[in-house]
Amino acid sequence: MHRTRVRVVEGVLDANDTIARANRADFDAADVAVVNLMGPPGAGKTSLLERTVRDLTGVRVGVLEGDVQGSLDADRLATLHVPVTQINTDPGFGGECHLDANMVRSALPSIPLEEIDVLVIENVGNLVCPAEFRVGEHHRVMVASVTEGEDKPLKYPLMFRACELVLINKIDLVPHLDFELDKLIRHVEAVHTGVSVLLMSARTGEGVEDWRRWLAQAAGRVSERV
Amino acid sequence: MHRTRVRVVEGVLDANDTIARANRADFDAADVAVVNLMGPPGAGKTSLLERTVRDLTGVRVGVLEGDVQGSLDADRLATLHVPVTQINTDPGFGGECHLDANMVRSALPSIPLEEIDVLVIENVGNLVCPAEFRVGEHHRVMVASVTEGEDKPLKYPLMFRACELVLINKIDLVPHLDFELDKLIRHVEAVHTGVSVLLMSARTGEGVEDWRRWLAQAAGRVSERV
Repeated sequence: MHRTRVRVVEGVLDANDTIARANRADFDAADVAVVNLMGPPGAGKTSLLERTVRDLTGVRVGVLEGDVQGSLDADRLATLHVPVTQINTDPGFGGECHLDANMVRSALPSIPLEEIDVLVIENVGNLVCPAEFRVGEHHRVMVASVTEGEDKPLKYPLMFRACELVLINKIDLVPHLDFELDKLIRHVEAVHTGVSVLLMSARTGEGVEDWRRWLAQAAGRVSERV
Repeated sequence: MHRTRVRVVEGVLDANDTIARANRADFDAADVAVVNLMGPPGAGKTSLLERTVRDLTGVRVGVLEGDVQGSLDADRLATLHVPVTQINTDPGFGGECHLDANMVRSALPSIPLEEIDVLVIENVGNLVCPAEFRVGEHHRVMVASVTEGEDKPLKYPLMFRACELVLINKIDLVPHLDFELDKLIRHVEAVHTGVSVLLMSARTGEGVEDWRRWLAQAAGRVSERV
């Protein structure tokens, strides 16, 4: 039974990649840079996006929110006058713990690609499966937070390897934790040599400007390529 | 294609339940209470277990550690002279984001059931899928932490509904967060009316005695039933 099951999963992944390539072609045609933003639940992905888009100038950001249920995160972002689209993985998708290319494809007609330079896809909070499913993105970025401890890169290496940029959030809390920031960074480097790391706090705003600059550069790179 | 995939997943769940029942029968026969301990990555499951078993008297606890890769958590617990068995979901299981009944079954010969009263199965850190797979446990308990924000019960209701006890960890950090503990508890209650909630800090030890008492009572209940 186990062998059969593995064959089915491989088939699904292949279909996913086909649809992801179609999504990517549409994003390229619209000259929109797409970032798949991943991370565990509670790492601060939505808070960071709120902080990022508030008073943002020079680059037009849209957000696609992936959640199992509800539109809490989308509602938070919509108040900041950013185009936000919500996907729920619960009805019709069986409560999936990740976004896949077909879910993103089904949301495409609702995303005003002509009005934005960058689309940030906030994936379902999960440190495992989202890394296994491409959705048509140009960039994969993850948010980790210092409250999760130093060992997560060693325990969930695939996610840290899949991303080109690791945002380490909640650094304002370091003084209140039994936690060594250097150790976390060493572990990130151990599983993904040379990966970019930015330290930040969505709460205080520290480091968020570096992340905004990264997003603006990502938008520029798509324009050059197209 | 989507329909086919759903049928396969349902088949797997049925097989899982069959094996879970076999596990449960073995646990009952050995008079061991089994707790499936779930929660997102970094909520402090392992730290809480370390604190729980240190100097514990009156109830003999064993641990089954589920991780995608590595044995970091098992190694931490083994230093406390508790029987620990490690399952990795990576080799042979395709990097699963949860434990299932068959994985637990394959670990059974390595667990000294005759030496323990309670087996705590620390699931893979994930707020979605572990709640969908029974492994033969008597009790489902989750660890949430205050650093994850107040909204998680509303966004990931299945996990909060699946558990009979919610341990809210890291309460020592509340003074340093923009966070309302009452609001989190209201949200837990909103998705699972009447669920038991214990507040604790694995770091300071606050509340851990209540959780130890709960474990001892769980062990007692199995003895009465068998």
